Amino acid sequence: MAGPTIDHRSPKFAELTYRVLDRLGKVFKTPDPVLLFPSSGTGAWEAALVNTLSPGDRVLAFETGHFATLWRNVATRLGLEVEWVEGDWRRGVDLSTVSDRLANDDGHSLKAVLVVHSETSTGALSDIAGVRKAMDEAGHPALLMVDTISSLASVDYRHKEWGVDVTVCCSQKGLMLPPGLGINAVSRKAIDASSSATLARSYWNWEPVLRMNEKGFFPYTPPTNLLYGLDEALGMILEEGLEKLFLRHRRFAEATRIAVDAWGMELCCLDPASNTDSLTAVWMPDGHDADEFRRIVLDRFDMSLGTGLGKVKGRVFRIGHLGDMNDLMLAGTLCGVEMGLGLAGVPHRAEGVAAAMKYLASSV
Amino acid sequence: MAGPTIDHRSPKFAELTYRVLDRLGKVFKTPDPVLLFPSSGTGAWEAALVNTLSPGDRVLAFETGHFATLWRNVATRLGLEVEWVEGDWRRGVDLSTVSDRLANDDGHSLKAVLVVHSETSTGALSDIAGVRKAMDEAGHPALLMVDTISSLASVDYRHKEWGVDVTVCCSQKGLMLPPGLGINAVSRKAIDASSSATLARSYWNWEPVLRMNEKGFFPYTPPTNLLYGLDEALGMILEEGLEKLFLRHRRFAEATRIAVDAWGMELCCLDPASNTDSLTAVWMPDGHDADEFRRIVLDRFDMSLGTGLGKVKGRVFRIGHLGDMNDLMLAGTLCGVEMGLGLAGVPHRAEGVAAAMKYLASSV
Amino acid sequence: MAGPTIDHRSPKFAELTYRVLDRLGKVFKTPDPVLLFPSSGTGAWEAALVNTLSPGDRVLAFETGHFATLWRNVATRLGLEVEWVEGDWRRGVDLSTVSDRLANDDGHSLKAVLVVHSETSTGALSDIAGVRKAMDEAGHPALLMVDTISSLASVDYRHKEWGVDVTVCCSQKGLMLPPGLGINAVSRKAIDASSSATLARSYWNWEPVLRMNEKGFFPYTPPTNLLYGLDEALGMILEEGLEKLFLRHRRFAEATRIAVDAWGMELCCLDPASNTDSLTAVWMPDGHDADEFRRIVLDRFDMSLGTGLGKVKGRVFRIGHLGDMNDLMLAGTLCGVEMGLGLAGVPHRAEGVAAAMKYLASSV
Amino acid sequence: MAGPTIDHRSPKFAELTYRVLDRLGKVFKTPDPVLLFPSSGTGAWEAALVNTLSPGDRVLAFETGHFATLWRNVATRLGLEVEWVEGDWRRGVDLSTVSDRLANDDGHSLKAVLVVHSETSTGALSDIAGVRKAMDEAGHPALLMVDTISSLASVDYRHKEWGVDVTVCCSQKGLMLPPGLGINAVSRKAIDASSSATLARSYWNWEPVLRMNEKGFFPYTPPTNLLYGLDEALGMILEEGLEKLFLRHRRFAEATRIAVDAWGMELCCLDPASNTDSLTAVWMPDGHDADEFRRIVLDRFDMSLGTGLGKVKGRVFRIGHLGDMNDLMLAGTLCGVEMGLGLAGVPHRAEGVAAAMKYLASSV
Repeated sequence: MAGPTIDHRSPKFAELTYRVLDRLGKVFKTPDPVLLFPSSGTGAWEAALVNTLSPGDRVLAFETGHFATLWRNVATRLGLEVEWVEGDWRRGVDLSTVSDRLANDDGHSLKAVLVVHSETSTGALSDIAGVRKAMDEAGHPALLMVDTISSLASVDYRHKEWGVDVTVCCSQKGLMLPPGLGINAVSRKAIDASSSATLARSYWNWEPVLRMNEKGFFPYTPPTNLLYGLDEALGMILEEGLEKLFLRHRRFAEATRIAVDAWGMELCCLDPASNTDSLTAVWMPDGHDADEFRRIVLDRFDMSLGTGLGKVKGRVFRIGHLGDMNDLMLAGTLCGVEMGLGLAGVPHRAEGVAAAMKYLASSV
Repeated sequence: MAGPTIDHRSPKFAELTYRVLDRLGKVFKTPDPVLLFPSSGTGAWEAALVNTLSPGDRVLAFETGHFATLWRNVATRLGLEVEWVEGDWRRGVDLSTVSDRLANDDGHSLKAVLVVHSETSTGALSDIAGVRKAMDEAGHPALLMVDTISSLASVDYRHKEWGVDVTVCCSQKGLMLPPGLGINAVSRKAIDASSSATLARSYWNWEPVLRMNEKGFFPYTPPTNLLYGLDEALGMILEEGLEKLFLRHRRFAEATRIAVDAWGMELCCLDPASNTDSLTAVWMPDGHDADEFRRIVLDRFDMSLGTGLGKVKGRVFRIGHLGDMNDLMLAGTLCGVEMGLGLAGVPHRAEGVAAAMKYLASSV
Repeated sequence: MAGPTIDHRSPKFAELTYRVLDRLGKVFKTPDPVLLFPSSGTGAWEAALVNTLSPGDRVLAFETGHFATLWRNVATRLGLEVEWVEGDWRRGVDLSTVSDRLANDDGHSLKAVLVVHSETSTGALSDIAGVRKAMDEAGHPALLMVDTISSLASVDYRHKEWGVDVTVCCSQKGLMLPPGLGINAVSRKAIDASSSATLARSYWNWEPVLRMNEKGFFPYTPPTNLLYGLDEALGMILEEGLEKLFLRHRRFAEATRIAVDAWGMELCCLDPASNTDSLTAVWMPDGHDADEFRRIVLDRFDMSLGTGLGKVKGRVFRIGHLGDMNDLMLAGTLCGVEMGLGLAGVPHRAEGVAAAMKYLASSV
Repeated sequence: MAGPTIDHRSPKFAELTYRVLDRLGKVFKTPDPVLLFPSSGTGAWEAALVNTLSPGDRVLAFETGHFATLWRNVATRLGLEVEWVEGDWRRGVDLSTVSDRLANDDGHSLKAVLVVHSETSTGALSDIAGVRKAMDEAGHPALLMVDTISSLASVDYRHKEWGVDVTVCCSQKGLMLPPGLGINAVSRKAIDASSSATLARSYWNWEPVLRMNEKGFFPYTPPTNLLYGLDEALGMILEEGLEKLFLRHRRFAEATRIAVDAWGMELCCLDPASNTDSLTAVWMPDGHDADEFRRIVLDRFDMSLGTGLGKVKGRVFRIGHLGDMNDLMLAGTLCGVEMGLGLAGVPHRAEGVAAAMKYLASSV
């Protein structure tokens, strides 16, 4: 006890809490509360659902990829009834389908619409403003819940302006921290819904978090080191400025897509308007195993490319370019992919790095 | 991606998982599985309950202090019915009460017995082997669940030998890590119970954790830095040896209790046989506010003593002596308390430090 | 090269250099240059001599303790002739002796006066302002060189006001850094002397350092990590404020001396007006070996007290209280000494800790 | 003092000293002593000279580049007479010149031959075994002194086998540490020479270092953190194995030279047999300023290429590839150079990265 004092019940700690929560609001672009849970991102999905819904409630969800499917599974396990719109894992949410489904729900039995903003497994972005517009046009009162795990602080996202009710996120992607914090940004409407929602909840209960946060504290032992790290990371992000940060990621993503195109390969995401800027999922030519290719790249170049998940296992590998990345790290990464394609005997033109360099050198 | 490779889906990571889980078993003294969740200790309470019980199930719990009360609240919120044995927060679980309650439960409607081993709020230890004996003598099939948050790796604890079904713990006390990992050590009987338990669960579900752990992985993004830290901490603990570590904590606790006695003050825990060795809660003389005293100690000596929690707020302050502590750090801590008592005008004899030094110098 | 850029020839590095050198001047209390060498403190002694003196030059030096003796040895080895004023290692420089020696030096053959400000081996402080006054009164033109290795940033020191020509220091005491930087603060007169001094010099040559520092660089590969650390440390020191920092060390030193007195023991330094505040050297009763006592304290309490050096080996042990120290760390240290005295069978009254606590609690 | 104990006079510290010195010998490939000084590499040059030579002694030195010239300057400043063999900074030491000069020195007035193994400013390697052979054939008794600052632990080096008397090195290149340690590996003959050498010396004196090292200590306050780091670094180097490490650096150097060739550019080093493997110095086409190019690369890609030093300022830029480097970091570095050449309008073919990738992918 004679050592350094980091008392999570002290006034100094409360200052940290206030500053972190205030800065998080700026990053989510909302004046409404943002809540932290000691958990993985999976926990933040669960928190969104158990606070706002009741057993048997119907929710609308879209099969845009692996993580949308996992979130669906969470909903099902918690006793919700999921209206599941199947998909081919190669594009974002289809807005006309959203409109159709909501139009058919005369009795407003759908209580929530679940969308993954940036599908980490496919690299496809869904149009959240478009989903909100479809909901408004249908005059549908369902809550809009959005997973921004691989988009926040990498791709433009606007919790308030887009009328999102619960935004789900976590610490280890755009916020550049180790895993360990699940995040919910919540609207007034979502908080109101929580007062009548009856799914059993204790750990994920927003109410004590909101109440304690007002005094600068948490209803659990907070992961102090992650909070200090979050404070640092948010400071860096806001100092650079969100718009500048988005442009930086856009530039890395563009360079990567230009390389893929020059290799003569295909993106997993088939809709050019829906590419996310935090990662790029590359579609493997038929007859070639993405994981075998990844294994070669890891063995030879000590670089760990993302694996294809779920349905696209073996068909896709993923290049991450979010977080602490610069031009030459990206160039090195693309060199690793290009050399790996050659070593793995994957048909390609060895011109991706050259094309990406041309783009990087000519853009700022 | 060109940076260092810590892929939580790689074979190297699997080795880490196996080693950590194996070492954890040694610390809990069990060959049965130990499961980790990215969460606070509160989450590990919830995990114990939702995996083994069904809505409306009855559980027996004892008001030994603040944390026992909080766990009770979790159970209630999750839809369980708690048979609550009230207490005065100044002793451990009364074994004859355990026997009585179980004897009265002819129909075995009680599905679980919940006990906090070391009550962090009061410094009282409950006799887990005794509770098991009472359950066995009553021939009662309820599950035994034990919170060891402030006892594991500080005070002797034996999951298997004492027949515990679910042990609840977390990372930030005896394991000397930052907060962020909730832990369940589970018996075969508990795992069996989980197959028929119907409380809704997704995040806390043991089944995917057990399944993925067998391959060395986790069903969520694991907090890799905490796992590396845990590996280090477990290595240090096992190198010192658990019995030696317990004696070390016993010695610090003895020195502290000797100081309290020499000050002419009282422990919160009224039963000398039930003092825990990880912390000491000191009872404030009537008319003196423990928090005012704590404030003076923090201001003057930059030392943060534990506050009285819940019912004993203002009546108790707590001296921690677990984790990375040595004789002179403890002596410095006691000096801070003794000087603080004087500055706060709390009646005492200024002989506690001298008595503790006498003890520390004469024991090894 | 694609990694982080810390180029010690970049403009950004130059800014660091300017800031560090400016802040160092504030701590030495001089507007004149301060020079850094990648070296131990021993190197800074050598730098002071080789830059200002010529083979065979006579210097006046005083046997105040171990480090004064070592500095004398450096001078001798470099080919200087040392007029050595013997001493008993239990007090600072005697000012009347300074006056006498200078008065006797009609021909001004003495080119420099060497004084250790705070003798780390004895805890005795020499009166630098008094030495300057004696030199001025004697109208003697010799250079005044002062070793502040264990006084800078712990005890009041004024390079400019006290008319010091070369101040010698290093990184690992009051500046709270690892060892690795030797320091010279120099007067205009010293720089002038360097232009005619003929002792061979290359590494220690001030001229290229002064020249390169003006552009923000160094004539050698600078220990960048130490410079970053120095920048941090100087920021902390100046934020606390030197006067406040001196009072803090005074208070720790007072508490320690009060404990020594209460133990019925003697200080190494026999002149109460000359105690330094950065450490306390305690004189062992006849027939008791200080190193045997130190060994016991290390074995039992993992605390490493300073050994007696040179002439006072076995007669003295040293308690350090400079750098990052607080009340309870000091109290813990004194507890370790008091328990150790008992275990080692050294005659004493076990009342030192109590007396120190009384003082610490009543002073701020 | 109650904090962690790192006492540089303790038995535990002695173990560290023994292990570090033993491992250093393996890296220098010598059973003879290796000595450490808290200093930059410049200090290690000075130590080599002052321990073995006397005022006015003649030494033979070769103008292979900037660092050879600086070492010459040190020798001159210390009062030695340097026989200086001029050069064009684009090749290593010419062996026939060595033979000629020694043959002409009938009276053996040359007391030492000074050679820089790997010239950091030019990328040219000198043939140390060849120099030794020339000395042996001439039957010349001069000491052979070699600077290995940018070759040790990157390029094959054999202190004992090549009959080197003093090897000069430092911490911040192949040993991958921060700057702060100067190193001398010494032969028996060099130690013998030191007993009659009369250059003034104190700080750099080998004798007390050798004497104290035998007990595991140092005659100065050692830079403990660097020693711990050195222990780690040596462990890593010996675990990888020196021969494997040399091949790794050879491969990076080859890839870089292939890229330079494919760009249609010239190396600074004109002798293909004398390229060092720790860095590559590239010669700028006439009319193009290397520093203007470097500025563009720093601004646009945050990569700091080495500047041309001394005579080749503006004519040369340097690519480092020693220490902690992997294929993709090197590839990223080469991408930065290639893009920078384009942006700076330097005539080149943009085919260097492609050629380097081809080589890296086909070699292991």
